Amino acid sequence: MSILAVGTVAFDDIETPFGRAEMVIGGAGTYVAWAASFLHPSINLVSIVGGDFPKEELALMNERGIDTSGIEIVEDKKSFFWAGRYHDNMNSRDTITTDLNVLADFDPVLPESYKDDPILMLGNLTPEIQIKVMDQMTKRPKLIVLDTMNFWMDIAMDSLKEAISRVDILTINDEEARQLSGEYSLVNAAAVINKMGPKYLIIKKGEHGALLFGEGKLFAAPALPLAQVKDPTGAGDSFAGGLCGYLASCNEINFEAVKTGIIYGSAMASFCVEEFSLGKIKTLDKDIIQERLNRFKSITEFSL
Amino acid sequence: MSILAVGTVAFDDIETPFGRAEMVIGGAGTYVAWAASFLHPSINLVSIVGGDFPKEELALMNERGIDTSGIEIVEDKKSFFWAGRYHDNMNSRDTITTDLNVLADFDPVLPESYKDDPILMLGNLTPEIQIKVMDQMTKRPKLIVLDTMNFWMDIAMDSLKEAISRVDILTINDEEARQLSGEYSLVNAAAVINKMGPKYLIIKKGEHGALLFGEGKLFAAPALPLAQVKDPTGAGDSFAGGLCGYLASCNEINFEAVKTGIIYGSAMASFCVEEFSLGKIKTLDKDIIQERLNRFKSITEFSL
Repeated sequence: MSILAVGTVAFDDIETPFGRAEMVIGGAGTYVAWAASFLHPSINLVSIVGGDFPKEELALMNERGIDTSGIEIVEDKKSFFWAGRYHDNMNSRDTITTDLNVLADFDPVLPESYKDDPILMLGNLTPEIQIKVMDQMTKRPKLIVLDTMNFWMDIAMDSLKEAISRVDILTINDEEARQLSGEYSLVNAAAVINKMGPKYLIIKKGEHGALLFGEGKLFAAPALPLAQVKDPTGAGDSFAGGLCGYLASCNEINFEAVKTGIIYGSAMASFCVEEFSLGKIKTLDKDIIQERLNRFKSITEFSL
Repeated sequence: MSILAVGTVAFDDIETPFGRAEMVIGGAGTYVAWAASFLHPSINLVSIVGGDFPKEELALMNERGIDTSGIEIVEDKKSFFWAGRYHDNMNSRDTITTDLNVLADFDPVLPESYKDDPILMLGNLTPEIQIKVMDQMTKRPKLIVLDTMNFWMDIAMDSLKEAISRVDILTINDEEARQLSGEYSLVNAAAVINKMGPKYLIIKKGEHGALLFGEGKLFAAPALPLAQVKDPTGAGDSFAGGLCGYLASCNEINFEAVKTGIIYGSAMASFCVEEFSLGKIKTLDKDIIQERLNRFKSITEFSL
């Protein structure tokens, strides 16, 4: 049983206060799949790339149990490209360039064998595409996780709300939770958003951790303070990959399971930001991940 | 054995996105003492007020075990007054007015009976005054906690560093930790600051919680997400009061104790912000506090 991940596979130019990286591998789908691959043996990735995307990168994914037959390759076009510059606080960034390229034509057709995957992770894409993917599933997945961003709230709120109404977990940041709900307090925002459909709302706060709201309960996860954050790109997608990778191993997906999934996600995000692109994530193994999970445990425990 | 708290006792005008309050009771010393009073039976408060400060407020403090004989009353002058306006995010604010009034003449002389108090909490004041207080102690307190702000880093860094070199716990916010250390990463900033003297550095992040660095270890405490934050004024001081109030009950002040102290501090801060001024804090009792402490436990626990 596989995790089905849908999201961009792309090139990034990234500038942070700590360095630059040009034409490095990026994309939400890439980060989700790589992060999940350390926790689950089988990932199906649906995306689109141009002829310029390195075949070696696809081969590396295949070695990690990521099936890339759902990635459409348009040989005579270019892959999606994003260039961004991070501010000093690393929690905010400016987009310098967005070249949609092949992404403008992305109209995912799921391979038959993907259509009953039990876990569906919808990376940040137009809500219309996220809906089209859900419509193609022959069996309602056990878990649907959707990630989105303020951009779609600005230009496509209605279809975004339709997409959100059909998922189990929504992952957005604090400002997006405020925009989506019209409520300033995150507690009130979560109450509104949980009513829109998602049983669980995960509010990602970057270096300040994440909050989970659902079943009338609350969980607060820290981010791991790090000596060096080189590049936040893909942190939210690595988080989603870790979350789905863990939840794929759970018989029952309940509040307790989602909490643990958030710690797995936070661990994967903490690795992601330590190097540009997938530099750190590609070097991981189960021991390194377990050590970091234990670190999250140790920095949050206290007695009363 | 008492907690000795030194800090302003004052009037505030406060404007937040959720309302206004005029000429309400404020001041770091006030919040520290009130918050600590629910955790420790005996607090000695050193401050200065004008003839305009309500005697009933001092009487209320006395009822709570706060000795106010160390508060100098200058009958023909006015109390310290601060007016501020909070931004939408409530984590930042503009100062509208600062009328030092009696505070310009503040030169604290400790009552003899205060000079061997085992816990000394130095609220945000000029570093020179914080040093003068430490110099008057006949016995080095078991614990000295110092709170300060960027203002003193801008205009009195040398004396601030001298003050900091003599304390056990320093409480500042994330931007101040960066300014004081010259390091952007909080992990690196903490390493620099711990070398300046304080065994423990607590970085207060407002609605994002607090971090503790010391003994080469790390602890991350969440803030409690609240449906309504009315007024963040005094949250940091209530935090310090809760921290000192808890630590006063500990035989040994080690990393584990400071962690628990941070949760007590975070609980007191969470009450503080729910109403303007001391509106909520004045209504507390042990049961309400214990319930909130348990809430911090419940929102941070997870299993791997």
